[in-house]
Amino acid sequence: MSTAVSPLAPANVPQMPAIAGVRLATAAAGIRYKGRTDVLLVALDKGTTVAGVFTKSKCPSAPVEWCRAKLRGGTARALVVNSGNANAFTGKTGKASTKLTGDIAAKAVGCKPDEIFLASTGVIGEPLDATKFDGVLGKLSESAAPDGWMDAAKAIMTTDTFPKVATATVKLGKAKVTISGMAKGAGMIAPDMATMLAFVFTDAPISAAALQALLKAGVTDTFNAVTIDGDTSTSDTLLAFATGAAAAQGAPRISRAADPRLKPFVKAFNAVLANLSEQVARDGEGARKLVEIIVEGATSKASARRIAMSIANSPLVKTAIAGEDANWGRVVMAVGKAGEPADRDKLSISFNGIRVAKSGARDPSYNEAEVSAAMKHPEIQIKVALGLGKGRDRVLTCDLTKEYIAINGDYRS
Amino acid sequence: MSTAVSPLAPANVPQMPAIAGVRLATAAAGIRYKGRTDVLLVALDKGTTVAGVFTKSKCPSAPVEWCRAKLRGGTARALVVNSGNANAFTGKTGKASTKLTGDIAAKAVGCKPDEIFLASTGVIGEPLDATKFDGVLGKLSESAAPDGWMDAAKAIMTTDTFPKVATATVKLGKAKVTISGMAKGAGMIAPDMATMLAFVFTDAPISAAALQALLKAGVTDTFNAVTIDGDTSTSDTLLAFATGAAAAQGAPRISRAADPRLKPFVKAFNAVLANLSEQVARDGEGARKLVEIIVEGATSKASARRIAMSIANSPLVKTAIAGEDANWGRVVMAVGKAGEPADRDKLSISFNGIRVAKSGARDPSYNEAEVSAAMKHPEIQIKVALGLGKGRDRVLTCDLTKEYIAINGDYRS
Repeated sequence: MSTAVSPLAPANVPQMPAIAGVRLATAAAGIRYKGRTDVLLVALDKGTTVAGVFTKSKCPSAPVEWCRAKLRGGTARALVVNSGNANAFTGKTGKASTKLTGDIAAKAVGCKPDEIFLASTGVIGEPLDATKFDGVLGKLSESAAPDGWMDAAKAIMTTDTFPKVATATVKLGKAKVTISGMAKGAGMIAPDMATMLAFVFTDAPISAAALQALLKAGVTDTFNAVTIDGDTSTSDTLLAFATGAAAAQGAPRISRAADPRLKPFVKAFNAVLANLSEQVARDGEGARKLVEIIVEGATSKASARRIAMSIANSPLVKTAIAGEDANWGRVVMAVGKAGEPADRDKLSISFNGIRVAKSGARDPSYNEAEVSAAMKHPEIQIKVALGLGKGRDRVLTCDLTKEYIAINGDYRS
Repeated sequence: MSTAVSPLAPANVPQMPAIAGVRLATAAAGIRYKGRTDVLLVALDKGTTVAGVFTKSKCPSAPVEWCRAKLRGGTARALVVNSGNANAFTGKTGKASTKLTGDIAAKAVGCKPDEIFLASTGVIGEPLDATKFDGVLGKLSESAAPDGWMDAAKAIMTTDTFPKVATATVKLGKAKVTISGMAKGAGMIAPDMATMLAFVFTDAPISAAALQALLKAGVTDTFNAVTIDGDTSTSDTLLAFATGAAAAQGAPRISRAADPRLKPFVKAFNAVLANLSEQVARDGEGARKLVEIIVEGATSKASARRIAMSIANSPLVKTAIAGEDANWGRVVMAVGKAGEPADRDKLSISFNGIRVAKSGARDPSYNEAEVSAAMKHPEIQIKVALGLGKGRDRVLTCDLTKEYIAINGDYRS
């Protein structure tokens, strides 16, 4: 298993400010790893609203089912995340394990289990021994503090090579509010590790319904527009929490996502989601190139998305990029197999701004040396112009290297 | 690029008998390769019927468009195949190139261009210089002979590591008829090489309409049930030719696919398709394991197919098999992401007959040592029982190894 930090890791890590109403603490509960933290408790003040979006897998993990059920209440007092065990495909044991964790956490922070949110990441199919949380969560509740965001982001890592955090401040009414988040994972994480997890927190006073609408809209062009290997985890979870503490500084209470006062907030919120999801792509297993795929001129945005995803998930496109080859023949192939409207003879393709194919054939001005030099860059943009309509979309992925195979296939050797 | 023969190549290569009405010849036309044959001419006697199925790509190659148009006539006098250049994404030049090749071939064998069928495999986006066929096809037409099937299968190879042929004989009425075929490729073939090509020949007297119906039905559970990397070529072509020469030995003329006299023939025909398509999986790029995926208990056969394909195309499942790991957590993931009806708590999974998961959790009788030993076998069967209905399907694939990355990504280094 690789431990070197991805060469695509962000150069600068932001200072993470405190968010009123949010306190964090981590511990080593010995779930699976040795010598590192593996459990995070985020204690949330009374009145915190919550929203969530989850994996579309038909075989979701027990914590995903737990969170889906608890979301109905709309309020949260704590988030408990463990790494090392995904509590997925664990049958009745898994369900019992979430219940026990919920009970222990509720007792620790003094609330109902319905206000506890859970996420687990790690091995699939192993029973999760929730008794390990007994005692641990109580101590964490006592020691939880407004700082410690980086420690939190580290405790939820599995094979991630760097902790992922993002933050923004923005005006809501006349008050300054903060939006901070953390994420881990990249598609299905190896070996056996499953899950993309992300958690976003704000002190803005936003109702659960409005927060849910924001989250659902925001995820479309951020987390849902990232793919590492096309493999959807059983445990993907994105939760947003709003403590409402900024109301004390005069921030207006927002009950509807369409409230015009929310506009700058929505922009900042989406920027935090975009930042975190890009970091997930930057930490794709074995990734050496961050790849942005833009499809324009499609018959609709949805059609552009499907074509972009077909390109982003093509092993042949991804290996070509690993080989620093502007192999537009493979891009044509991936466009062709997407099943979406496309006219070969109208197709143009660019790599990092250099057009290599035009009107269904090689661009006459194509310069091999120029494009070869461009392909050495760690960030590669593939732009496909279909020439059919106004549909446009963008997805992020990474290249496919031998390191991916080593991470996912070598561990039995 | 790897040149070693795949360890999964069939141990025995069949003796390929002559088929009355079919003559073959190969030559080195210097399309791209040096020191090897790269063009195949198959001359067909008058009265030969033809059927074909092609890539579903929206960006098909020029030869695919040519064949689709010529199929309407229902008769064939020659097949011309070249390797080294796919004549795909070549715009108007590509269309002109197929026309010139058709004209040269028609003159060589003495027929109309409408009775010429073409297939090209190799690099995408390079203009194919069809003048190279001038003179060559005339000589091939003169030298074409009923033997030479292995030479033919070799001339159409690109990065294939072994030539792929299959044959069967069967009674039609009271006459013995022969069905022989050849294939090349596996998904999109590297580097830049595109195309799965397969050609099947018989002396049975079968109408073009009946042959087309047979081919369309036969391909569903053979070529369409094989995936190497989920990447659909711009050039996939499967053509079937029936010379009708066996009518002279008393074989009845068949005009309808549903003709009951055709039953044994259909079985043999499908067996040849199955044999060839399995050889394609056995020559998957970098493959070290042949993987059979069986999904049963689905709500329909189509649903079982989609789930089986989701498993077969999952990079994480494929790398796990390369690592000889019975990683059923990843199989659960791939079932879950397929978007088809599935109930986690009814799911059972076996590897090579050893059940590892049952009723949505690890099988209590699971024996790590036993299943680890089974995973060392070069042929791996993954069976998933969904417990929902009677839908069942089967697909073939191979594992995903570092060699795949090397073949597809290293050639620029």
